[in-house]
Amino acid sequence: MTGTGESSATEGVGVEQSRREEELIERVVRSFDTCADPRLKELMTALVRHVHAFIRETRLTGAEWNKAIEFLTATGHITDDKRQEFILLSDVLGASMQTIAVNNEAYRNATEATVWGPFFVEGSPEIPLGGDMSFGAVGQPCWVEGTVTDTDGTPVPGALVEVWEADEDGLYDVQYTDDRTAARAHFRTDVQGSYRFWGITPTPYPIPHDGPVGRLLQAVGRSPMRASHLHFLVRAPGHRELVTHIFVRGDELLDKDSVFGVKESLVKDFEEQPAGTPTPDGRVVDGTWSKVRFDIVLAPAEA
Amino acid sequence: MTGTGESSATEGVGVEQSRREEELIERVVRSFDTCADPRLKELMTALVRHVHAFIRETRLTGAEWNKAIEFLTATGHITDDKRQEFILLSDVLGASMQTIAVNNEAYRNATEATVWGPFFVEGSPEIPLGGDMSFGAVGQPCWVEGTVTDTDGTPVPGALVEVWEADEDGLYDVQYTDDRTAARAHFRTDVQGSYRFWGITPTPYPIPHDGPVGRLLQAVGRSPMRASHLHFLVRAPGHRELVTHIFVRGDELLDKDSVFGVKESLVKDFEEQPAGTPTPDGRVVDGTWSKVRFDIVLAPAEA
Ligand SMILES: [Fe+2]
Ligand SMILES: [Fe+2]
Repeated sequence: MTGTGESSATEGVGVEQSRREEELIERVVRSFDTCADPRLKELMTALVRHVHAFIRETRLTGAEWNKAIEFLTATGHITDDKRQEFILLSDVLGASMQTIAVNNEAYRNATEATVWGPFFVEGSPEIPLGGDMSFGAVGQPCWVEGTVTDTDGTPVPGALVEVWEADEDGLYDVQYTDDRTAARAHFRTDVQGSYRFWGITPTPYPIPHDGPVGRLLQAVGRSPMRASHLHFLVRAPGHRELVTHIFVRGDELLDKDSVFGVKESLVKDFEEQPAGTPTPDGRVVDGTWSKVRFDIVLAPAEA
Repeated sequence: MTGTGESSATEGVGVEQSRREEELIERVVRSFDTCADPRLKELMTALVRHVHAFIRETRLTGAEWNKAIEFLTATGHITDDKRQEFILLSDVLGASMQTIAVNNEAYRNATEATVWGPFFVEGSPEIPLGGDMSFGAVGQPCWVEGTVTDTDGTPVPGALVEVWEADEDGLYDVQYTDDRTAARAHFRTDVQGSYRFWGITPTPYPIPHDGPVGRLLQAVGRSPMRASHLHFLVRAPGHRELVTHIFVRGDELLDKDSVFGVKESLVKDFEEQPAGTPTPDGRVVDGTWSKVRFDIVLAPAEA
């Protein structure tokens, strides 16, 4: 860790003033010399250098520093067991997505990861292949199918796949107060590494925006909406765990997803089927439905 | 604002991986293009670049990200009307001191500023020159005298001077529950720009350390103690407001002040006087006392 941003930070600032500012940084960094945990020391040192570079580059005023303290205080006060405003803050700054990125290094043709989101729940119902994960959640039926393979194309049979999504009102089951379980399930791939299930066509929804993070988004002219998506978690021994979404090609929110979860490789064709079109499994659908294919490629565990 | 730290951030990271990480940063930065307030846009852009550079340089793990979220949550939950843990956090990272530094540019021989601290209170009692600001606070009596001048040495008569400090038990009046007012006062310089008052010899005290910030200090092996100091606030029309402290030469905490408030130019000789030594104003002191000189130089308001 070297003095990141030091040189650019001193533009237009006098020599003695720069000396004072830099001397302060070194003094703070040295205060962590006593830290017995080398990783904690590395993290604190990097944090200090970036916080100080931010203040120096922006010439942060006392009034702005006050506003930052007030913002963090309000963010802390709205946070409780059900509402996690600091995670929302990390999400809308792209910090959650960047953490996912650095922990899921690009590996050949392996499927890209994206954010967890706050709505995964342990203990979803198991469904058979071809089963319906909606459990009554409202929305257009959507047939989802694909394979799970390794990066050489070898099928991964018995892979655990968890799927979850919002209903067409933009709400996950856990956002209702009636303890329902809906639009979430898990299943395992077959001997060919294939899977298929009925879900619902994803629709957009906003992140909670009635708190400090929502007010920040409003102040900068950003929308709280997330691009329509369907969540996947895939686990198989010997392979890197994959947490990802698929997105809907043509969704006008793709380039303004509030948490920066969209990756081009995860945008899929959800093909609209006119009412009356026969379904792959003979299910009778009352009205239109859609279908999408998502072939999942897992990186090796050690990648 | 350019891509601070970008080049060093990609050491040991593959080309495709770096491309993904950098593309994400640019996407987040572009999301602020809609911001109508140019300063807010500048601040958010700089914040995003530094947060992302921090994550990339440190290759922050998911577990570490979780710990950071938990730390901020705990910091928010201990914060209330009386306890401001986010300010403490800013203080122990040197961020408060750096903000003071960038807003008080070095100007010729002007006295250096330091942190406000949390214990200034509006409406302190007025005392005459030579009066006693301790109002019964326990501690060794200390005679403080000096001048207020501009950077050319011209006296500044009628300058408002506020002084406040902890008692020898390390507590400010507002930390007691009996609503006392003690060890704080204000007065004005005389026609020669001189001042003098009785205070108490400063002693060390810890910042509040029973919360997340205290646990952080403990984890990194740092002390919560502040070097002994006496606070000054000086205001005079046409001059830059000065918020500063003086410190006690020889105090072993000078180089490990928990909030990095110490500057060499603010370390003063507090001369111990044996019991019975006549005082400058004929006051009878029962025991030892000390005296210190602090000549204050104000920068012009527009500096
Ligand atoms: Fe979601
Ligand atoms: Fe203090």
